[in-house]
Amino acid sequence: MTLINLQCRLAARPIGLPKASDWDFAEEPAPEPEEGQFRVQVDYLSVDPAMRSWMNAGRSYVPPVEIGEVMRAGGIGHVIESRHPDHAVGEVVYGVFGVQRYALSDGRGVTRVDTSLGSAPMQLGVLGTGGLTAYFGLLDIGRPEPGQTVVVSGAAGSVGSIAGQIARIKGCRVVGIAGGADKCQWLVDELGFDAAIDYKAGDVRGQLRLHAPDGVDVFFDNVGGEILEEVLRRLARGARIVVCGAVSQYNSEGVPKGPGNYMQLLVARASMTGFVVFDYADRYAEGLAQLASWLESGELRSREDVVHGDIRQFPEALLGLFEGANTGKLVLALDSEG
Amino acid sequence: MTLINLQCRLAARPIGLPKASDWDFAEEPAPEPEEGQFRVQVDYLSVDPAMRSWMNAGRSYVPPVEIGEVMRAGGIGHVIESRHPDHAVGEVVYGVFGVQRYALSDGRGVTRVDTSLGSAPMQLGVLGTGGLTAYFGLLDIGRPEPGQTVVVSGAAGSVGSIAGQIARIKGCRVVGIAGGADKCQWLVDELGFDAAIDYKAGDVRGQLRLHAPDGVDVFFDNVGGEILEEVLRRLARGARIVVCGAVSQYNSEGVPKGPGNYMQLLVARASMTGFVVFDYADRYAEGLAQLASWLESGELRSREDVVHGDIRQFPEALLGLFEGANTGKLVLALDSEG
Repeated sequence: MTLINLQCRLAARPIGLPKASDWDFAEEPAPEPEEGQFRVQVDYLSVDPAMRSWMNAGRSYVPPVEIGEVMRAGGIGHVIESRHPDHAVGEVVYGVFGVQRYALSDGRGVTRVDTSLGSAPMQLGVLGTGGLTAYFGLLDIGRPEPGQTVVVSGAAGSVGSIAGQIARIKGCRVVGIAGGADKCQWLVDELGFDAAIDYKAGDVRGQLRLHAPDGVDVFFDNVGGEILEEVLRRLARGARIVVCGAVSQYNSEGVPKGPGNYMQLLVARASMTGFVVFDYADRYAEGLAQLASWLESGELRSREDVVHGDIRQFPEALLGLFEGANTGKLVLALDSEG
Repeated sequence: MTLINLQCRLAARPIGLPKASDWDFAEEPAPEPEEGQFRVQVDYLSVDPAMRSWMNAGRSYVPPVEIGEVMRAGGIGHVIESRHPDHAVGEVVYGVFGVQRYALSDGRGVTRVDTSLGSAPMQLGVLGTGGLTAYFGLLDIGRPEPGQTVVVSGAAGSVGSIAGQIARIKGCRVVGIAGGADKCQWLVDELGFDAAIDYKAGDVRGQLRLHAPDGVDVFFDNVGGEILEEVLRRLARGARIVVCGAVSQYNSEGVPKGPGNYMQLLVARASMTGFVVFDYADRYAEGLAQLASWLESGELRSREDVVHGDIRQFPEALLGLFEGANTGKLVLALDSEG
């Protein structure tokens, strides 16, 4: 039986929000695994804000997706055919399989998924790159101390919701910034944030003054733009800004907006530091063990926002991220096809 | 004899470059020292880019100069009258005496100047706040290692010229960015920079590529604006940006320009850190001893750009800084009056 593989490829470099013509869907016979390879049927795709940056040309922390290439995406699937000694049919695996139904792999960058620890969507979020990003970014770069004020932007997203909870576990006062009353309520009522600021309701400045009266010691920033500028205005002496993302700027047409008041770093003797979770690969086990333990004890909660569909739903799912449609980790479950 | 004190006061908050109507000159009898006070005749005024930021309202690392207040300035003078037990007539002293001919002091913040170490203009520069700013900013915040590439903007200025030389002494490859061929030649021929980039000649990008082929490990930034963005494009992995100043932005009308590509901090796993030299007060002696020793051995050179005039020349001298008129430390010597 020849499998037909549906792929979502990058057709053009988007200007602003990706539009339909920036994507190309192709159906073609999936090639057979060669010796040393195995074939994965992708069941879940991770949908992440950073994907937008991978679509741009130019220097970034990963090479850009090339025009005509299958869109890059992390995913979880199961092995359906194997000529690889270490991967057996039926195994559940994580890898950067791309936005396609079937992927060939030689095992590089592929890890076995311990399904006893949590569902596949959790493995793409709190027990995957997102959780690890929150863990190492907050603890290694942010270095919060008990009693300090930690502000998280994109706080209802995959990474932000975990970063804020870790700060809470570490004894900090945690203020989340998110879009919409529902998300804010979830942060405070369910995740135990001390306060949440709905930036869509306006007056972020006044709300920050209210909820961070002694200034912001750690800012875990997923958003950039105006919110970054507002937090820069309220930095405490010696503050650390963790540069994790800038989702407000990923779709800017032309040059993104830099923080016009970055000289507040001088006023506050503060730092702004970028990091990439891949650099912590040799400590992933430590991070995952800690995250799993907090989940088990109930100190840490995760939420997965699972969209059901097929490969063709990917572009819309991605747009949803930028519209703030999701709460928690956005996952596309490929359960309406094949 | 009643002394008449000429003062330069802030008349209005400038928009853009300070203009004549932003200043007010007043002549009035200088008050007599009370018990515990002494009177200083100011002989030299330090003229610094940061002064422009002191003229703005709003949060900064020092309170703004208020409207009607004597413009703040560091200066060196001699004691001409004393009712203070620790300061005798004739003593040469440094203090923030302001842009005026005579100042009263109770001794707080005033230090005796050891004239054997260097001239008064040097004491306001390489052996003063400027030298200490370069020393602690480069070594404590920049943490350059031998063989690394250090880029300094505003490299022909008071702080930049010292920071670059300290980097050279520490075994780094040093690239200066300055405005004009003469300044660039001075940096390379006299100060031993490995290369200098004349930003006025254009193509900063290409020149950085040429002179920092392996990327920039430390950027000591006095300038901000487009030059900051160009250096962000070329950061080496783990780079440190020392946020010392942003002279290109101090006179912007409206909101200053932030670095639109600050997400390069993430790409390069780099940091951007602000500092204020005052925080190192308990290590000034260490810094000054080291700077004096390097000067004596000839490893470190300084240049002072001394403008001769009176208090009324101050506004023009300050504008000269923003036009890049000076090479090295700009000092106004008050030797054409009194």
